[in-house]
Amino acid sequence: MRMRLAVPLVRAVSTSASGYLKVGDALRSDRRRFTEGDVAAYAAVSGDRNPVHLDDAVARGAGGFSRGRVVHGMLASSLFPALIASRFPGAVYASQSLRFAAPVHVGDEAVAEVKALNIKTSSGRHIVKFSTKCFTIGGDEDDDEEETPAIDGEAMAFLPTLQLSSQGIAD
Amino acid sequence: MRMRLAVPLVRAVSTSASGYLKVGDALRSDRRRFTEGDVAAYAAVSGDRNPVHLDDAVARGAGGFSRGRVVHGMLASSLFPALIASRFPGAVYASQSLRFAAPVHVGDEAVAEVKALNIKTSSGRHIVKFSTKCFTIGGDEDDDEEETPAIDGEAMAFLPTLQLSSQGIAD
Repeated sequence: MRMRLAVPLVRAVSTSASGYLKVGDALRSDRRRFTEGDVAAYAAVSGDRNPVHLDDAVARGAGGFSRGRVVHGMLASSLFPALIASRFPGAVYASQSLRFAAPVHVGDEAVAEVKALNIKTSSGRHIVKFSTKCFTIGGDEDDDEEETPAIDGEAMAFLPTLQLSSQGIAD
Repeated sequence: MRMRLAVPLVRAVSTSASGYLKVGDALRSDRRRFTEGDVAAYAAVSGDRNPVHLDDAVARGAGGFSRGRVVHGMLASSLFPALIASRFPGAVYASQSLRFAAPVHVGDEAVAEVKALNIKTSSGRHIVKFSTKCFTIGGDEDDDEEETPAIDGEAMAFLPTLQLSSQGIAD
């Protein structure tokens, strides 16, 4: 397996040339590897100590995950609001649907992609419907750049502006 | 305001008398107060540093939240899988929909309730559709036990057994 450099989480690349979000524009997160430490930290703050996230034997047995422990779905799904907020600081989430199509295993690298499906503007606020997809990267040994769909759904968010923030949010 | 004792997160009370989940049974989490420390820890592990969660001025301005900073929706929503996993260790999430009806502010106390809407059993696994609701507690000064709907939606989860775990998951 090729070595990869650590990359910051919240910076993202837009397909929009104008600097303003338009219907059809897609935003992509940087890659994120979910470590054992991330899963432990999330279990602590969420209180979700489901053993499928913490115990390889339970994950393989009751969970049916042959590769063992899986990342909490809600932790992997946090890539979506993190990505939207990085480009639109002050965004407020209205809804999110999530279908967990395939597991993100502890140690897997994942990437999120959101795409503007619909934009409505009223009273100076913009309500945007996004498709939201999360992929794991490199499951196939023959192609370590292959992306496998893991989570899909849609989100609605109120954005204070459609102008894309180029700098993301400072750490 | 009355002082309240800290309560453990994942223990829950079932309406089921049989010890096995049936359609119509509701499970309720203990109360959880989301602190500034929780929000900071979640921001760190999720990478979601949206200032509506971290900066009162932005929350009041761009966010439109007169009471200031709000808890990340995905953090408050973690009550649902945490509650389900506490009663059904080894549960695997298939889907979740979330509508953020009202904010959970930093410092607010919240409680989750899930109710079994549908149960199907196949090949020794149970797929259960739950309604999922989160309420904030005590917004009205005249009635500090009043519950305000904050999040609602539905979840589908695979359960290894319908038998309710009485002890939850050890810390």
